[in-house]
Amino acid sequence: MTDTRVLHTRPLQATAFAPFGQVIEAVGPPDRLINAGRCGRHHDLARLDIADRAGISVFRSESVTLPYRFDLVERHPLGSQAFLPMTEHPFLVIVAPDLGDRPGDPLAFLTAPGQGVNIGRNVWHGVLTPLADPGLFAVADRCADGPNLQEHVYPAPWTVLPG
Amino acid sequence: MTDTRVLHTRPLQATAFAPFGQVIEAVGPPDRLINAGRCGRHHDLARLDIADRAGISVFRSESVTLPYRFDLVERHPLGSQAFLPMTEHPFLVIVAPDLGDRPGDPLAFLTAPGQGVNIGRNVWHGVLTPLADPGLFAVADRCADGPNLQEHVYPAPWTVLPG
Repeated sequence: MTDTRVLHTRPLQATAFAPFGQVIEAVGPPDRLINAGRCGRHHDLARLDIADRAGISVFRSESVTLPYRFDLVERHPLGSQAFLPMTEHPFLVIVAPDLGDRPGDPLAFLTAPGQGVNIGRNVWHGVLTPLADPGLFAVADRCADGPNLQEHVYPAPWTVLPG
Repeated sequence: MTDTRVLHTRPLQATAFAPFGQVIEAVGPPDRLINAGRCGRHHDLARLDIADRAGISVFRSESVTLPYRFDLVERHPLGSQAFLPMTEHPFLVIVAPDLGDRPGDPLAFLTAPGQGVNIGRNVWHGVLTPLADPGLFAVADRCADGPNLQEHVYPAPWTVLPG
């Protein structure tokens, strides 16, 4: 007998991800053509919901492999957080619904090249989990000072397996 | 005799680029270690200087090749514009000093993998010029309505050659 619970990755897709934030990607026809038609602008894809001051940082993270085991999720009461991969490598996006001050069962989304995410303000999510090195991301989030982190440790770990 | 003027690419480097904006990259030790030491945060790298509402869009652009010929630059009086590559391919960043309502001679910077740029508000710059397909960028800029573009056509074209 084991206390480990299992979840399988699912492809990152805007509708399924909508309760948690927005998928940032160029899908379908662009909203505008610019630069004499050479460039398509897919406009205003993320809901930046930041209490005070937004900024852009770069995160460089060690990668993880599947099966990936975790028991920690976190959330940020003062702002959304956009993760914009600077490579074409996939990464895992782990999120969980809120059950009223604690998270429910998590979901694990697997990105495709060209997909970023904006995780909504106060949405439970796992730490950054690239699946290849270098795990390099531009991050648009709150850059003001002061605490902005709530953590939750599940009573038993979860294991993420390929979908 | 030709009216074409030539400029050579130079590697994108923070000091040389400082008059025009910020280089967004993970260099040196991170400002903070997060996620139990697995991830370095290079914090607050861009000066987001946007008059009203910032947002995140995705640009998908045709690539260009060297020698690259252009005569148009533009600027945005109401906001800075961050270009965050979603691939590891290099791109050209063409900028020019302001001579008082018109640009001076342009410069052409060549990025390395993992480098983005934030082009300052009202800084003259060329259109997006990826050097490989897909030219895919997350862009943090002004997403409010209303005009925000000033263009300048040089009296003779410039040709960008490898540095």
